[in-house]
Amino acid sequence: MKVLITGGAGFLGRRLARKLLQRGVLRNSTGEEEAIDRLVLFDVVKADGFTDPRVLAVTGDLADPLAISDLVDTDTASIFHLAAVVSSQAEADFDLGMRVNIEALRLLFERCRQLEHRPKVLFASSVAVYGGELPEIVRDDTALSPKSSYGVQKAIGELLLSDYSRRGFIDGRGVRLPTISVRPGKPNKAASSFASGIIREPLNNEATVCPVTADTRLWLLSPRQAIECLVWAHDLESEAFAQHPVLNLPGVSVTVGEMVDTLGRVAGKPAIDKIRWESDPVVQRIVGGWPGCWDMTRAHALGFTGDQDFEGIVRAYMADDLAPG
Amino acid sequence: MKVLITGGAGFLGRRLARKLLQRGVLRNSTGEEEAIDRLVLFDVVKADGFTDPRVLAVTGDLADPLAISDLVDTDTASIFHLAAVVSSQAEADFDLGMRVNIEALRLLFERCRQLEHRPKVLFASSVAVYGGELPEIVRDDTALSPKSSYGVQKAIGELLLSDYSRRGFIDGRGVRLPTISVRPGKPNKAASSFASGIIREPLNNEATVCPVTADTRLWLLSPRQAIECLVWAHDLESEAFAQHPVLNLPGVSVTVGEMVDTLGRVAGKPAIDKIRWESDPVVQRIVGGWPGCWDMTRAHALGFTGDQDFEGIVRAYMADDLAPG
Ligand SMILES: NC(=O)c1ccc[n+]([C@@H]2O[C@H](COP(=O)([O-])OP(=O)(O)OC[C@H]3O[C@@H](n4cnc5c(N)ncnc54)[C@H](O)[C@@H]3O)[C@@H](O)[C@H]2O)c1
Ligand SMILES: NC(=O)c1ccc[n+]([C@@H]2O[C@H](COP(=O)([O-])OP(=O)(O)OC[C@H]3O[C@@H](n4cnc5c(N)ncnc54)[C@H](O)[C@@H]3O)[C@@H](O)[C@H]2O)c1
Repeated sequence: MKVLITGGAGFLGRRLARKLLQRGVLRNSTGEEEAIDRLVLFDVVKADGFTDPRVLAVTGDLADPLAISDLVDTDTASIFHLAAVVSSQAEADFDLGMRVNIEALRLLFERCRQLEHRPKVLFASSVAVYGGELPEIVRDDTALSPKSSYGVQKAIGELLLSDYSRRGFIDGRGVRLPTISVRPGKPNKAASSFASGIIREPLNNEATVCPVTADTRLWLLSPRQAIECLVWAHDLESEAFAQHPVLNLPGVSVTVGEMVDTLGRVAGKPAIDKIRWESDPVVQRIVGGWPGCWDMTRAHALGFTGDQDFEGIVRAYMADDLAPG
Repeated sequence: MKVLITGGAGFLGRRLARKLLQRGVLRNSTGEEEAIDRLVLFDVVKADGFTDPRVLAVTGDLADPLAISDLVDTDTASIFHLAAVVSSQAEADFDLGMRVNIEALRLLFERCRQLEHRPKVLFASSVAVYGGELPEIVRDDTALSPKSSYGVQKAIGELLLSDYSRRGFIDGRGVRLPTISVRPGKPNKAASSFASGIIREPLNNEATVCPVTADTRLWLLSPRQAIECLVWAHDLESEAFAQHPVLNLPGVSVTVGEMVDTLGRVAGKPAIDKIRWESDPVVQRIVGGWPGCWDMTRAHALGFTGDQDFEGIVRAYMADDLAPG
């Protein structure tokens, strides 16, 4: 089977690719495990470093209709749609966010509709679709009220996914990802970038800035578990998403203060001293409006697991990503 | 001040135009009453029958960017965006619905953004943004879960309205209209067309079909009160919409059976005998998924009124629209 990852050179895209290559199989539309013989990694930047012959790294702009027709054909059984302009960037560049987060998604779905082969389409939505005054525990029937352009664009993506699915144009599955922490590598343009930085930089003996207050509550998922969840959501039967095409993934609820305490427990006081607290009102407003906890009943009923606690998340980062010192 | 009504030849558009001409004034962005010296009625069909010199009836396609640049300029202080492809038609013709209900709205908002004059934009959303399993009384924080393409498109319109407003590109105000009953004239392509037909046709001594069961619960507003609400929403200060850009308008909750009973009370048994019950699963599915009641706390707090009860709605129709027999 041919599998496409959009945003395949991105952080989650590359990890997912590695996971799929290692696994070798996915469940197809009839629920049977099938070998992945082609894995297309599409991105504006080249997904390099893959030597596996099953991988085809293609560069292009997903908002370009011609690029999409070349990319998706009736052999494309499954699409992981991860390409996106992330939160702070979508806030800074409205047009770019609209173009990639809405127009490109729409073109992708339209291409599937035109081909009439109803591929599985997994869409990575975000905690950012929530905002404003929220109940302490967000539930599946809590209204979306995004307060950032990124959140609005993700919410629109969810709605399009649901209608294209309901009409039988695609076999859509949306998952709302918690904030991913700890991301390895460099800070990025997500408003939540610090949620990795305040752990990653100290563990790498580098200085970092925390732009939000210690009582800011976050809903987190490790990269490792995020990838497990994407694959799990893909492999579920489509009935699991028939009534509710979008699912809140499991997460761990912690305050930024608790995160720093955990860092101290794992790596000692010198690590904590690497963090400078310097508030950024824009980041505080965006991230502070996201839910710090949501109900996991449905996710658990569908068999999704998540992280045990934040210490587990930190240790997973140290095991998976921290260069041996 | 110059006021634009898109869908100005439509049912609500024409009524709103008559109301605005009669009123003569609207509150401008500084909250002061200002004379309407230009009322532009834009629609694919010509809004004829208006002789008032303030009226300019323009025909064109709102999904055409050139038409929009001609239409909206920095003098356009207020826009009532009513143009839409309604429910059954958006379900039957997916592309047309997407084009008018999303693309045209987006072009209109983009034009405003480009001009940087931040006009008031009133958007008519719908009860159809809700769907699926709903609480008995829908509240402002109940999740939208539209189960029709029309409802999805309206929900997307709401999200765009909220983000264009939050970013200061427009002064947006969304109102979710209940089903409008009793509409005069001919049946239309709304799935809820029967909600007027089962009253209107019998009162005009014509036969009609009721496609849903008697226990189907509807949330209704008379055309008269709908127009009052549109004007009221326009005239409120923008703060009223700052946190929640979309408002659930007041309505009356009745079952179809109660509607028919009311018809009998007002017009006697012969009127009821004009109704043939013949179920239409598509209409039942769409309309049956809409809320039959929603919480009116916020609407009332903001000074919106509505109809007293369904009998009042029927009598309003007889007073406003029924040709003297
Ligand atoms: N990491 C998180 O915390 C998090 C949380 C919630 C949701 N998500 C979502 O998960 C997905 C993947 O996130 P990530 O952390 O890997 O982000 P990322 O920024 O690392 O990856 C996104 C990729 O999309 C690519 N891209 C952008 N515009 C494109 C275009 N026009 N055409 C083709 N490719 C384009 C980028 O080049 C980038 O490689 C995104 O949709 C993101 O919104 C991530
Ligand atoms: N009447 C109701 O029960 C009800 C309920 C909820 C919401 N609404 C909303 O209220 C608004 C007005 O409803 P209505 O009952 O007057 O509907 P209507 O169908 O009578 O009017 C809509 C008008 O939009 C025009 N239009 C369609 N496509 C266009 C385009 N591309 N360019 C320009 N004009 C175009 C149509 O010609 C029509 O005159 C709509 O947005 C509708 O969705 C109505």
